Amino acid sequence: MKLNERGLLIVISGPSGVGKGTVRRALFEMKNHNLVYSVSVTTRPPRKDEVEGRDYYFVDKKTFEQDILEDKFLEHAEFVGNYYGTPKDKVEEALDRGKEVVLEIEVEGALQVREKMKDAVFIFLVPPSKKALYDRLNARGTENKELIDKRFQKAEKEFLLAYKYDYIVVNDDVNNAADRIMAIIRAEHARTQRTIHKYIKMLEE
Amino acid sequence: MKLNERGLLIVISGPSGVGKGTVRRALFEMKNHNLVYSVSVTTRPPRKDEVEGRDYYFVDKKTFEQDILEDKFLEHAEFVGNYYGTPKDKVEEALDRGKEVVLEIEVEGALQVREKMKDAVFIFLVPPSKKALYDRLNARGTENKELIDKRFQKAEKEFLLAYKYDYIVVNDDVNNAADRIMAIIRAEHARTQRTIHKYIKMLEE
Repeated sequence: MKLNERGLLIVISGPSGVGKGTVRRALFEMKNHNLVYSVSVTTRPPRKDEVEGRDYYFVDKKTFEQDILEDKFLEHAEFVGNYYGTPKDKVEEALDRGKEVVLEIEVEGALQVREKMKDAVFIFLVPPSKKALYDRLNARGTENKELIDKRFQKAEKEFLLAYKYDYIVVNDDVNNAADRIMAIIRAEHARTQRTIHKYIKMLEE
Repeated sequence: MKLNERGLLIVISGPSGVGKGTVRRALFEMKNHNLVYSVSVTTRPPRKDEVEGRDYYFVDKKTFEQDILEDKFLEHAEFVGNYYGTPKDKVEEALDRGKEVVLEIEVEGALQVREKMKDAVFIFLVPPSKKALYDRLNARGTENKELIDKRFQKAEKEFLLAYKYDYIVVNDDVNNAADRIMAIIRAEHARTQRTIHKYIKMLEE
């Protein structure tokens, strides 16, 4: 019996190259989960095969900027001239349906979410060592050395923000990391601040 | 990879009749755990088959009272003229060896531990309803109605102390409850306040 029936907002973040996407996919491949992935809003034009509402919600720039003004995003950022944002209403709706909503986002975005969703669970994914991250960035093989060094320098700054998160999970092995995140989700549902209201109601019945 | 290598002190508590012992046994029967049970000190004479250091540490009353004065217990209580206590040094020693030390104790004792071990994990085990607890107390069949009613009245007061715990776990099903407690243990090892020091050291290497 789960005292807390509302879903949790799970923010998985960490420096670029740490393997957020891989861990998130491993998490979704696990059995008996109740996870949904938050679909972002973007002003970038859809690529072929991309489906509205599955890959992104596609809007024009004017709409996006109006939505920023109306505080409709949990976080948003501009990237190569396009906006990307997490729509607050869709997230709240999924949480109300009891879904665990997973946000896999950059450190900057995660800290924006922290301001707006005090109740969310913040997980900082880290590499087993700085060297491992550097090797991983190099192993991608798609970027030149200058860009890799730039990413690594950014990561070194982001490492210092770990203290802002609720949990630090080492991505030494993708399945280990996903398992631990699943344990965190189960545990968080039992945390007293989430369960005490329902528990008091239960006692009154 | 586990950033926090020290064991956790896990305090499982809750009103009398909620099934603390059953859940604790189910927990210890799970695979791949690293749990140890804290052995209490008592002034009660050993029963036959009871082994020193396995069932209890048996001491005389004078020794126990001296130990109270020297703050050697995480908690202690008197019951039917005998003392019972949790020895701090043995618990610390097991935690240092990376063991998860499980204390299965009454609410009053748990609150004493809370004062002394800020870092411990406090789990409040609750019945699915007040009626379920009352039925369970009756089902024991070993006590008279007066004693059962007294226990139930005590439980009703203890229910109000749930807010002092980190987690509330419903014992609707023993294995569910044990599973959830195991998830809590895994999750707590990743909590930022336990991992950040090791994480910073790791980054410096």
